[in-house]
Amino acid sequence: MGEPTRVLLDESRIPRNWYNLVPDLPAPPPPVLHPATLRPVGPDDLAPLFPAELIGQEVSGERYVPVPDEVLDVYRLWRPTPLIRARRLERRLGTPARIYYKYEGGSPSGSHKPNTAVPQAYYNAREGVRRLTTETGAGQWGSALAFACGQFGLACEIWMVRASYDQKPYRRTLMRVHGATLHASPSAVTAAGARILAEDPECTGSLGIAISEAVEVAGQHDDTRYALGSVLNHVLMHQTVIGEEALEQLAVLGETPDLVIGCTGGGSNFAGLAFPFLREKLAGRMDPVLRAVEPTACPSLTRGTYAYDFGDTAGFTPLMKMHTLGHTFVPDPIHAGGLRYHGMSPLLSHVYELGLVEAVAVTQTECFDAGVRFAGAEGILPAPEPAHAVAATIAEALRCAESGEEKVIVMSLCGHGHFDLPAYERHLAGRLEDFTLPQERIDAALAHLPSV
Amino acid sequence: MGEPTRVLLDESRIPRNWYNLVPDLPAPPPPVLHPATLRPVGPDDLAPLFPAELIGQEVSGERYVPVPDEVLDVYRLWRPTPLIRARRLERRLGTPARIYYKYEGGSPSGSHKPNTAVPQAYYNAREGVRRLTTETGAGQWGSALAFACGQFGLACEIWMVRASYDQKPYRRTLMRVHGATLHASPSAVTAAGARILAEDPECTGSLGIAISEAVEVAGQHDDTRYALGSVLNHVLMHQTVIGEEALEQLAVLGETPDLVIGCTGGGSNFAGLAFPFLREKLAGRMDPVLRAVEPTACPSLTRGTYAYDFGDTAGFTPLMKMHTLGHTFVPDPIHAGGLRYHGMSPLLSHVYELGLVEAVAVTQTECFDAGVRFAGAEGILPAPEPAHAVAATIAEALRCAESGEEKVIVMSLCGHGHFDLPAYERHLAGRLEDFTLPQERIDAALAHLPSV
Repeated sequence: MGEPTRVLLDESRIPRNWYNLVPDLPAPPPPVLHPATLRPVGPDDLAPLFPAELIGQEVSGERYVPVPDEVLDVYRLWRPTPLIRARRLERRLGTPARIYYKYEGGSPSGSHKPNTAVPQAYYNAREGVRRLTTETGAGQWGSALAFACGQFGLACEIWMVRASYDQKPYRRTLMRVHGATLHASPSAVTAAGARILAEDPECTGSLGIAISEAVEVAGQHDDTRYALGSVLNHVLMHQTVIGEEALEQLAVLGETPDLVIGCTGGGSNFAGLAFPFLREKLAGRMDPVLRAVEPTACPSLTRGTYAYDFGDTAGFTPLMKMHTLGHTFVPDPIHAGGLRYHGMSPLLSHVYELGLVEAVAVTQTECFDAGVRFAGAEGILPAPEPAHAVAATIAEALRCAESGEEKVIVMSLCGHGHFDLPAYERHLAGRLEDFTLPQERIDAALAHLPSV
Repeated sequence: MGEPTRVLLDESRIPRNWYNLVPDLPAPPPPVLHPATLRPVGPDDLAPLFPAELIGQEVSGERYVPVPDEVLDVYRLWRPTPLIRARRLERRLGTPARIYYKYEGGSPSGSHKPNTAVPQAYYNAREGVRRLTTETGAGQWGSALAFACGQFGLACEIWMVRASYDQKPYRRTLMRVHGATLHASPSAVTAAGARILAEDPECTGSLGIAISEAVEVAGQHDDTRYALGSVLNHVLMHQTVIGEEALEQLAVLGETPDLVIGCTGGGSNFAGLAFPFLREKLAGRMDPVLRAVEPTACPSLTRGTYAYDFGDTAGFTPLMKMHTLGHTFVPDPIHAGGLRYHGMSPLLSHVYELGLVEAVAVTQTECFDAGVRFAGAEGILPAPEPAHAVAATIAEALRCAESGEEKVIVMSLCGHGHFDLPAYERHLAGRLEDFTLPQERIDAALAHLPSV
């Protein structure tokens, strides 16, 4: 049958360690600051929100953090994930490029999110926590955390961005099947949500607002902690299982990538694939371009500023230096709910500032066009978030068709689109909007940056 | 890490042959009859509906039919599928049984249906057909055929049972993403549909009606053929890749099954898993019980009669001897749309008459309870159809907990439930109906059996 289409690894090849990029960087990332003192935060500042083990991972200087057996035992349900050669797509594009996609859609919740949900639930349960609160955009993170909490006997309470809550009823049910309690955000059950609703009862929400709500509740109860689905160092680190496996799978094929592509909202999907490749690049063992793809409606890397800002809208979180559109920025309700975040992972922002990764922005209709094209060729319908990566991959493959370059492209296909069919329906009906983001809206939000 | 949770095979292990049970049976199945002459149908009778290769497979006496390379090349996108040990479910049930599930939900359309859609599209395309018509219940077959047609450049026109059309809008979009044309059935675009709508404008449809419509259109156009997603011998044969792989995966583990469980609508999912095991049983190499699970709302095996009947409602198809509730029977609108068929595969019916398989019926709420329980333990949310198999598996595992028997159970988990979340939502809200099927309704439908 010639070269394989899917490279599978058996479960003994699940990575035993998560990879921490920080010690390999030429410069350390800027510290996270306490919003009142503007001093670097310490473990005590974070203790009301996170268990000690995750706080330790957040600031760890170790290159590798071992994956606990209890986490491996859950990972085995769907990991290692396949690396698939997109032969049919290549053929239809007439490209000499070789396109590989790392497919995370076979997980219990249909995306890469359980990679970090499972260890987060595990560490919290081990330290005696009884309930986790969180936010969710498209619902992929929420359903992953609901599943993970169920595995370790934790209660799970989720604030879901209203734009997605209304667009994605199926995701709501999936979270409830796993026993989670749900609120549309902004909600009236928190002070932060009630304040925003008082100003704008029609507010479609944002990840920043939902984070404020979940953080507020976690901070009020001793048995409750908060879990974040992206942005933070420990989250990005848990996702490196994606890139570690992909490296091993490419080695099986004898391939060396020229280009690694992933979509970016908070940054964990992209970093999960790209950071292990960046390690190899920094060590001189390969030299791929690492390309982050974001929506033009929420372009934190390509049009945001690099500054200290809050992770949430209400200003409850520590201050993080990151690419941001301003913590008060509310993106238009694009269907890629997981990419509607005002900021970018501080670690990924730092890496971007160091010039080690590049970024592009694509429009909503480009993404859905790419998603339909990909499904027609490869069968799998991408979620709107990875459809951004697909769009950038197709663009590159078409450039290769022009130039004749036989580039090896590795793309993260971080979730299937089976929950996102109303958005595809709108697209097929020609009713999908492309939002042009005026500079004034960015400027207005950036005017609210905290002064540091 | 001890015994594996998932047994994966690499793509060189995709079966190279489909298995035809017929030559291994102690008695041949009764012939299919022409409705006018009541004589056995010949290839010429079927030529308006099917390509020659599939007609040949339908009546083949060969034990093995080779899988063409072009089909293998598409199978590679998701096959071999994993066999997964349900350790977490076992633990939660406190059962000494060892439960394995063969998971087909990782396919492009999320179920086992592409296993036959791909070869059917391939053979039609090879013989110059330009368009395929078909029916679909839950939409799993329709989306599989739409995908398969897209792979081989065929147009695809689908009649979708109205009950599912209304309940499963996401499936409709998935078919459209793959370029298919859709009609809710009964539709006004066919004579058969128009006749039924005239009698009952509110008719929720059935697979039998949708088949009439698709067959009618295929019969009217030279460049158009019809494709069936279950029931027929060639369809069951294509699905045997499931059982062949499962046999190999169990051999890797050194396990011998005591019980093989699958849900049955038209019979192809169950037969796909069970028939290779039946071959082994008939050859004396193992002795598993083979248990088909059907809905109490549509119990063709457990409450139907074994008689010659039409495959469709309008009486266009040849007469097949099968377990049937009568071709005019319209089942209540349960959410397992793929199991709402009045008849059962003639080959599986024959095997059932020979006493080689057994059958049980379960209620809708039992299935959804089982689905939620399975998702909580294993992460994967089953579609309502395989939730029937899950319910029967859990029942057996609990009996083992009582008796202490260490049975090895192999179950077909033929699709994920990500398209079926409205039904789960109803279930969680306590609003899911259990339909009690009165004997008079069966008797009334059986009164319309053709006299043979």
